[in-house]
Amino acid sequence: MSRTWQAETISQAGLQLFVAAGADADQARSAVRSLVTSSLMGHDSHGVIRIPEYLEYLANGSIVPAATATVERTGPTTAVVDCGQGFGAVGAERAVSEAVSIASEQRTACVITRRCNHVGRLGEWVQLAADSGMIALATCNSPIYGHFVLPFGGREGRLATNPIAYAVPTGVDPIVADFSTSVAPEGKVRFHRNEGKPVPEGWILDANGSPTTDPNAFYGPPRGGLLPLGGDVGHKGYALSLLVEILGSALSGIGSQDATVFGNGVCFIVIDPTAFCPRETFCALMDDMVRYMKSSAPAPGFDEVLVPGELEFRALRRRQTDGIPVDDSTLQALLDHGERLGVSVIDILNGGETT
Amino acid sequence: MSRTWQAETISQAGLQLFVAAGADADQARSAVRSLVTSSLMGHDSHGVIRIPEYLEYLANGSIVPAATATVERTGPTTAVVDCGQGFGAVGAERAVSEAVSIASEQRTACVITRRCNHVGRLGEWVQLAADSGMIALATCNSPIYGHFVLPFGGREGRLATNPIAYAVPTGVDPIVADFSTSVAPEGKVRFHRNEGKPVPEGWILDANGSPTTDPNAFYGPPRGGLLPLGGDVGHKGYALSLLVEILGSALSGIGSQDATVFGNGVCFIVIDPTAFCPRETFCALMDDMVRYMKSSAPAPGFDEVLVPGELEFRALRRRQTDGIPVDDSTLQALLDHGERLGVSVIDILNGGETT
Repeated sequence: MSRTWQAETISQAGLQLFVAAGADADQARSAVRSLVTSSLMGHDSHGVIRIPEYLEYLANGSIVPAATATVERTGPTTAVVDCGQGFGAVGAERAVSEAVSIASEQRTACVITRRCNHVGRLGEWVQLAADSGMIALATCNSPIYGHFVLPFGGREGRLATNPIAYAVPTGVDPIVADFSTSVAPEGKVRFHRNEGKPVPEGWILDANGSPTTDPNAFYGPPRGGLLPLGGDVGHKGYALSLLVEILGSALSGIGSQDATVFGNGVCFIVIDPTAFCPRETFCALMDDMVRYMKSSAPAPGFDEVLVPGELEFRALRRRQTDGIPVDDSTLQALLDHGERLGVSVIDILNGGETT
Repeated sequence: MSRTWQAETISQAGLQLFVAAGADADQARSAVRSLVTSSLMGHDSHGVIRIPEYLEYLANGSIVPAATATVERTGPTTAVVDCGQGFGAVGAERAVSEAVSIASEQRTACVITRRCNHVGRLGEWVQLAADSGMIALATCNSPIYGHFVLPFGGREGRLATNPIAYAVPTGVDPIVADFSTSVAPEGKVRFHRNEGKPVPEGWILDANGSPTTDPNAFYGPPRGGLLPLGGDVGHKGYALSLLVEILGSALSGIGSQDATVFGNGVCFIVIDPTAFCPRETFCALMDDMVRYMKSSAPAPGFDEVLVPGELEFRALRRRQTDGIPVDDSTLQALLDHGERLGVSVIDILNGGETT
């Protein structure tokens, strides 16, 4: 069961909860905007359901409520953003903004993060850069405790689901791609286990390295692993995942097996397309390219060819009108946190329920 | 059948043939070195068998034998290399050298090519950058006549096999990844057709968009298509392929459907890791990471976990000693071209056969 509220109403509740939990108001606003935007774009797994999770992190100190992100410019086109364990959204926004600012002057930039909490939907940050006219690539690794993904040919996890995202401006909505470099993210395997259903073939191996569709064989103990993108040519997904790990750990001076490392290692690479092509020409060519992709007749089982990000922008427009569904368990968690923190979540929500 | 010669001997033959065909000696040396290196590293499809092909291109004007690659620096960290339709290897080497040179000063760089012939093994060029201590990414698109690859959900090709390569220095051999963003390259489908064998499931669709293992159903007419990397999650391979197309066409001011465009659109992104981490630390961390990957116990059917490029460096060491096998049909083509051009290929080869 779920009930539906307008984004603005949920944002008010989230903001007041985060502030009551000790967060700086501006930082709380950024974090809430990020989570609510993920829900608006249809990515509920990275959306409102994380508000209670972040409140727990604020309570146990994993998120430092009023951390200051500091930027160290390490070269003409490079910077390191130390996020100080604050909200990941605040750190990621600071890092991508710095990369855009550098690329505006220098045409290319590379900015990495340290001590950065969960950054949410990686696509959000590259989209910010595309909204400023930039081409942006982003990678995001996780420390050793998240190494569920198998190197190609192996049966012991050595990598996280290591997403890659990129965004490119067009004349209308930007292209925004954002995907894990494993076949499936761990959360989807958990979902199947919780539902008591097998996972599709090609997602996981058991602890012996044999293919299985039983999600319990992944969790063990002993633990199995998630397969890298590509199936029989999984060396390609493995190579991509390894690149994400390199940019998230070694480039930052951190060892892949260092168990004391905290949070996501994010790397933003930003390129100003006007270094090569006038903006209007570039955007017109991108619009042509989108039309060209979409002009491919659909294969059986598909209604149309989409470009990366298109589904998300459709969800955004729909949910900006229809509101965001909030499941009962998330709602109850918000109410419970409200009680603990002295915030009347129900009064805020009662002002804005849409159904 | 094949016979085996030392790399040096084959290089001599290739060099004399290219020069006799009108090529500048230095450029011919670069082109031959590139092709012979591909064979040394085990990638025969991009190696010596291309010498006769390049000789045909020289004869029909597709390769301009003494073209001058010109570099236009378009910003503090960006450049465009117009390869003037010379050897692709010459253009690619010029472009990656420029990117390394810029990144040495500015820490990041982005360099693209125009009018660039077949660049061979994309991994070769990023490896050059890694040999200079840099992290390098490269993408390579092809014009509309190579658009065999289906956008996810489509049944009409809109993209080429669009490889991605990257290289990263370590304390020993660099990591060098180089792979197409389709499940399989077109050449492998052709190989199966020529052998009269079905292709593995998941490689191709027929013209109706239905899965097939019949390579003839790919070639048609009507033509089918190559599937993007990822199978059920082929939207990921499609997103990667689209990125390659964006960096190879729109960024260069070129339309994806422009049938007058010539050659590969290559984009090099180079990052100097010392902007973030001392070189020794970075290389030591990379060595640790390689050991960590390889420490994963192998899955059934595998002897060990490898890192990208490892197989190629093993082949290189083996073939530097054992020589390079040349198939009879390539040998005959070399002899025929020699006759046409007044080069006694057999005398050159007789000096150096190893078996």
